[in-house]
Formats: sequence, structure tokens, C-alpha cells
Amino acid sequence: MPHRRTAFFVSDRTGITVEMLGNSLLTQFDDIEFQRVTLPFVDNLEKVREVMNRIERANAASGMRSLVFTSLMKPDLREEINKANCMVLDVVDRFIVPLEEELGTKSAHAIGRSHSAGNFKDYNHRIEAVNYTLAHDDGMTNRNLEQADIILVGVSRSGKTPTCLYLALQFGVKAANYPLIPEDLERMKLPPALLPLRHKVYGLTIMPDRLQQIRQERKPDSKYASIENCKWEVTAAETLMQQAGIAHLNSTTKSIEELATTLLHEAHLVRRVY
Amino acid sequence: MPHRRTAFFVSDRTGITVEMLGNSLLTQFDDIEFQRVTLPFVDNLEKVREVMNRIERANAASGMRSLVFTSLMKPDLREEINKANCMVLDVVDRFIVPLEEELGTKSAHAIGRSHSAGNFKDYNHRIEAVNYTLAHDDGMTNRNLEQADIILVGVSRSGKTPTCLYLALQFGVKAANYPLIPEDLERMKLPPALLPLRHKVYGLTIMPDRLQQIRQERKPDSKYASIENCKWEVTAAETLMQQAGIAHLNSTTKSIEELATTLLHEAHLVRRVY
Repeated sequence: MPHRRTAFFVSDRTGITVEMLGNSLLTQFDDIEFQRVTLPFVDNLEKVREVMNRIERANAASGMRSLVFTSLMKPDLREEINKANCMVLDVVDRFIVPLEEELGTKSAHAIGRSHSAGNFKDYNHRIEAVNYTLAHDDGMTNRNLEQADIILVGVSRSGKTPTCLYLALQFGVKAANYPLIPEDLERMKLPPALLPLRHKVYGLTIMPDRLQQIRQERKPDSKYASIENCKWEVTAAETLMQQAGIAHLNSTTKSIEELATTLLHEAHLVRRVY
Repeated sequence: MPHRRTAFFVSDRTGITVEMLGNSLLTQFDDIEFQRVTLPFVDNLEKVREVMNRIERANAASGMRSLVFTSLMKPDLREEINKANCMVLDVVDRFIVPLEEELGTKSAHAIGRSHSAGNFKDYNHRIEAVNYTLAHDDGMTNRNLEQADIILVGVSRSGKTPTCLYLALQFGVKAANYPLIPEDLERMKLPPALLPLRHKVYGLTIMPDRLQQIRQERKPDSKYASIENCKWEVTAAETLMQQAGIAHLNSTTKSIEELATTLLHEAHLVRRVY
């Protein structure tokens, strides 16, 4: 196995912010496989030097300079890690310090507070949205369906459930989902419960060969997973959506984050959590 | 209502990366409430100038300079937006260009590819983990419980479900959860199904007054939500965990992200998705 370049996320606290930032940036380079290592609670010079030894070993093993994303706050620790033989991307230097200056206040990190901790309103919105979404997964119930912010429809395994959960967890959106089953597709009509809520309905579709691949993992060599059946279901579902005047997204080439974020904008959903 | 400072996320594509980065940074300043505006698909000079007008209006309305996080790639667009009367935090300038130089390759953004799209292996891990987690929520079944990467225990409403879903969606971790119900607390023993899997069990606890607040929203003025009952359950659950030799985290002051990330490290879970 070829050695991969290492990306370190180094923090004097939990490392959550720097890990999120770093991962967000690394997804921009998804041709390259990185070995990712998060090193939290690096809060004194001795620990920084241990980190630097680890960086040296990673450089030697891979034959490539490691990347180091860091959010160390103390000037002496930052100065030290900048001596490492690697590319150091310092979040504090490049973003947090300028923001502190502009906003005239210290960051939570600087004053030792926890990452977005204790925001009770956010927490309630999330929990409420998650509970709602779990109760309204896969057309489980029509009770309180009118309270949904959005109702996703699509054939089985088109990506509805993870997209709804992401909308609930990340944005506090109440996201119901409803499968389009062969009966709906033969009738060429939306499930009856959705008719009065059509303005909240949004479609997900998927390419038949990808659908076949996903279904094959779940029910190998079934009619359900056959390419003929997948083609028929997808074509029928897209026709049904078009006839019912329902906008849809294709999930095939989109990550769950991208689907959820696109829906947030396209369906003009109100984000309740940041 | 006092006007809030506006934070703009400006992108020539979907804006997902810049929005994630910006939000990650803004959670560092959670004393300040921002009005957040994402402006995707800003891909020519005319649109940049519209954005600049919007920034001027936001500045005038709030009496405060807006923050602008931007990931515009084209030099002429970047040059233009940097003339705006606001703090511009340019992700391309500060991070993507240095990374491109170091890695000797262009970013997905630069070459117009979609955000982490089409990673089939990641998608499968996520879906598998989400399905597993949904099937093993709240002690729903003991079937295949041994396949869990982690089993969270705690009293009702201590934060188990959202934490498990986050672990599954974000990290591809199979996370089961099991409630500690009054019967368990009276026996002072883990639910029997968990005894052979004790090495995978991790506890969540919560401060009684916070628990009372959460339960009160769900079942107002019930015995379940009373502060006496919450105190008793929490004390008993913590004693049980201690006696059973199970490590636990307190969810009271932690966000779901922080709980999940801390568990990932503390329980040495293998992250399958980035």
C-alpha cells in the first residue's frame, strides 16, 4: 500500500473547529487520500514537541510533507509549531484573530469556552426536528404531517432518509419522507395523504444503475434490485413528479450535505440551527 | 428588535464549503447573533456588484460593517468584492491557494467539480450506519447488537438519539442506544443484553435541572418531568455506570457535534466517512 500524505488537526482544546475546517478544505482535494490525525488537548510546549516528532515520522514514512491545520491559541505554542517541517495552516492567525479584531471581542476558544455549548434554544430545535423526522420516516404516519417543513418523496433507496436526518440535525428542519411505491407509480398519482400538502413536497431521484447498485447490497439478486425494475421505477417516479408539478433533485452525484443544503435554498426552508 | 450584524457567505458555486467554514468560525463568537445570508452562484461581475449593494444596505440597516466569507475563484471577482466596505475573509486566498501550491493540484472548486460528490464507498458506509442506528435506537432490538461500534446508555432524554445519529451520518459509526429505565436503576444493573457487550458501552449523563427542562417540554407537569424524579434517575444512573465500570460524558454543556467528536476519540471509534 502506498503511503499517504498525513493531515494533522492540532488543537489545545477538543479540536472540533479545526477538524471541521480542515475536513471542509480537504474535500476540495478529493483526488488525494489523506491519512487524517486529530491531536486534541495539545496545551504545552512539551506536547507541541511530541506533535512535531510525530509530524517528522509521518513525513519520513510517506516521503511527503504533512499538512498541519492548527488552532493553538498561545503565541509560544504557535511559534513553535510553525517551525515544523510541513505546511502549517493556522486558523487562529488567518481567521480568528482578524475576526476578534473586527468584532471587538474574544473568541470562545480564546476564553476557554466549549464549542457552541449550552445553546438551549438550538438544542430544542434540533431535538424537536429529529423526533419529528424519525416519527415521519418512510411514510410511517400521516399524523401531524401538515407540520412538516418539507416532505421528500422518491423511490425506495433514493436517499430520502439520510437527507431528512441531515436537515433535522444540522438545520433544525422538520423533514418528513414518503416512499413512492409501485402502487403509486402504477396509478401515476402521489400518495393521497400528500395531495393537500403538495406545496411542501420535493422529489429525490437517482440514476437507475446507481439505484441498482445500492439495492443489490441490500437485497442481492432480487426483482427489487434488478436493473429493469430500477429503470422502470425511476422513469415512472420522474414522470409522476413532473405531472404533479413537483420539483426534484438528482441524488446520484451529490453528497448528503449538498442535497440538504441545496434543498434548504431551493425549497426556501427556514434554518433554525447554526 | 436591535439590528444584527450580517454575515454573508458568497460563492460562485453552491456555497457549501464557505458556509460550513464560516459557520464553524462564527460559533466561536456565540455571544453575537448574526444575520446569516448565503449567496450562491455569484459568478460574474454584475452579480458581485449586486452583492456589494446588499452589503451596503445591510451595513446601513445594522450600523455595523458586515462580515463577508467568500470562496470566489476568479481573480477579477475577488478583486471587486475586496473593495466592499466590510471585512472580507477570503477562503481561497487564505487557504485554498496555499493548499493548491503545496499539493501541486487544483481544488475541486477551481475545476468546477461538485462538493465531495459521488464517493460511493462513503455513501454506503453512511447509509449502512444510519440504517443500523435507526434500527437500534432506544433499545428497539437486540438483534445484531454485537455489530455496534458503540452502545450509548443513559436515562430518557439524556441526548442519546441525536448523538447516535450524528455519529452515523457524519462518521459512518454504527451507534446503538439503550435507555436506562427505572427498573434498571432499581436493580442497579445494566440491561441484561448489554452485559456481554460491556466493552462497547458508553454512558451519557445530564444535569437534573436541564433534564427536567427537556422533559417538561415533552410531558408537562408529569412525574417523569418532576425535578425529584430527574434527580433520582440521574444519581442512580451515574452510580450504576460507576459500579459497572462504564465511562460517561455529561451532555449538559456540550453540543451534539462535541459529544459525537469526543466519543469518537475517547471510545477509539473508527471513522469511516470524511
